[in-house]
Amino acid sequence: MSSLDEHGLIARHFRPLATAAGAHRLLDDAASYAPPRDLDLVLTKDGIAEGVHFPAGEAADLVARKALRVNLSDLAAKGARPVGYLVLLGLPDDWSEAWIAGFAAGLAADQHEYAVELYGGDTIRSGRLVISITAFGTVPPGGMVRRSGAQPGDRLYVSGTIGDGALGLRAATGDPHLHGLVGEADRIFLADRYRLPRPRMALAEAVRRFASAALDVSDGLAGDLDKLCTASGVTAEVAADRVPLSAAAAACVAADRSMLDLCLTGGDDYEILAAVPSRSAPDFESAAMAAGVPVSCIGDVRAGAGPARFVDVAGQELRLVSRSFSHVRTDDPLR
Amino acid sequence: MSSLDEHGLIARHFRPLATAAGAHRLLDDAASYAPPRDLDLVLTKDGIAEGVHFPAGEAADLVARKALRVNLSDLAAKGARPVGYLVLLGLPDDWSEAWIAGFAAGLAADQHEYAVELYGGDTIRSGRLVISITAFGTVPPGGMVRRSGAQPGDRLYVSGTIGDGALGLRAATGDPHLHGLVGEADRIFLADRYRLPRPRMALAEAVRRFASAALDVSDGLAGDLDKLCTASGVTAEVAADRVPLSAAAAACVAADRSMLDLCLTGGDDYEILAAVPSRSAPDFESAAMAAGVPVSCIGDVRAGAGPARFVDVAGQELRLVSRSFSHVRTDDPLR
Repeated sequence: MSSLDEHGLIARHFRPLATAAGAHRLLDDAASYAPPRDLDLVLTKDGIAEGVHFPAGEAADLVARKALRVNLSDLAAKGARPVGYLVLLGLPDDWSEAWIAGFAAGLAADQHEYAVELYGGDTIRSGRLVISITAFGTVPPGGMVRRSGAQPGDRLYVSGTIGDGALGLRAATGDPHLHGLVGEADRIFLADRYRLPRPRMALAEAVRRFASAALDVSDGLAGDLDKLCTASGVTAEVAADRVPLSAAAAACVAADRSMLDLCLTGGDDYEILAAVPSRSAPDFESAAMAAGVPVSCIGDVRAGAGPARFVDVAGQELRLVSRSFSHVRTDDPLR
Repeated sequence: MSSLDEHGLIARHFRPLATAAGAHRLLDDAASYAPPRDLDLVLTKDGIAEGVHFPAGEAADLVARKALRVNLSDLAAKGARPVGYLVLLGLPDDWSEAWIAGFAAGLAADQHEYAVELYGGDTIRSGRLVISITAFGTVPPGGMVRRSGAQPGDRLYVSGTIGDGALGLRAATGDPHLHGLVGEADRIFLADRYRLPRPRMALAEAVRRFASAALDVSDGLAGDLDKLCTASGVTAEVAADRVPLSAAAAACVAADRSMLDLCLTGGDDYEILAAVPSRSAPDFESAAMAAGVPVSCIGDVRAGAGPARFVDVAGQELRLVSRSFSHVRTDDPLR
């Protein structure tokens, strides 16, 4: 407990983040934002709770950065340029000012990294640690990349590597099976990937210019691809061996082939899955390279309906146990 | 627990609320919004948690409406026309679909009442019931009414009546002292005022046109007036007997004079406090009357600094025990 009141806490820890003129130094009830003429706003809101989306006792700065980054990842997948965010910080009964200072430091680091500014928010007691962020960005009119524009023949791309988040959750929680598969350096790499998503803001412009449909891979590649297919009225085929794995994830799969299933269906990747018309594929690849973001073509969009097929090098379909990952338990629809 | 997954729950209960084109029927990762040319956005974010901002076991539709209305109240006080909102619904472990249905029904009722639309959100498990809403609206360029524009000589107005929320919390929780002061009809009236704020959207345009500074009274009239004064670099004097009380609140004060202190410093009023230049006062009053919102002149802005003075009919200053109300306990800076 601190001798500062809420006003004092906000002034000390959050006002330095509210660098936008429209944030009014967090001294008002609301923020104002003058949108650039002829741009659409893109708005997204994702929340995370202790014990569900991050482990109890997670470092405050990592909690803050994860909460912000999962929202920025949505903006990137929609082709938006990020502008700002508002944050609700719901604190447990045993909150401390040191924790809030760490939380604000995490936000400060990511504001610098992603060129976003704090526009406002609210700090409340909520019994358990809960963070809800609303992030907003801009696209040209009608330019938000939807899930629903994929056409048969489009190529499917993912950024970065897939599966690190799901393996990383096991690494971060000391899963004994994973411990037996790979060494400490790999486990540290994977746990870090789980704890701190890397939203692909640098790819947003290429996605906006060339993708017919896109989303960020947060609930598992297979399940998220199914969402894209359903929204677009298509299906898809993915060559499982072309799904890019990090060296650490590849080591896990080499030691236990069933880990591939986890990579393809586990969540927390925060990479971008995009459908790109084949005629635009070279331009998309060039733009991604210019942006410094690795992208891999993993398959293509097909006419039809139903879940996407994941096939091995022999053309045999992989049977995935579930299409997407639940943080909590598989009979709970919420996460 | 329900057999529906999160997708099914959203489709059934929340999709009907997502009537704006830019909500994309909640089938995408983000919403888009094309701001009308030459308008500023006003954005606000307030959260409420069970056991802190509303009692445990509160009806789901009332929880939803309170969560939305405290945000709309901020927009009204800033002079903004509401457009839409995004909602994070953080559910306890024992959530049920019936509860979610009631929550959505409450939002539906208020969307109709206040002409706002759901743009997106997130549903998570959070251990305790927590709702965070981000609401946005529009004002002409630079038109957001700040806390900071009050000038010496401005008149101070409040809408509606003050104190019902704080008395209503006592009525809703069966406070025995309040029970001894007034009858059941008054207690029911007060509890309803606490449970269901009435944001003064109809007054927003008059505030925007004529107020030099404004905020909504959520933490207590005295404390919120102090915030306005501090932001504006002024102080104020309020004639306590001119602060408008409902018949129920007046009955409480008649039976126990100390209840006036609670009315002036208790929270949850969600009325608008506005400073209006004296030359604009007739126009402000006319506009408020045309909008059907009662407003009362309670005092005026003075040169100087320090907390606003509340004086009785004899000109004696009231000594208020605290300037604003804490839901939790007075040594806890958060609420």
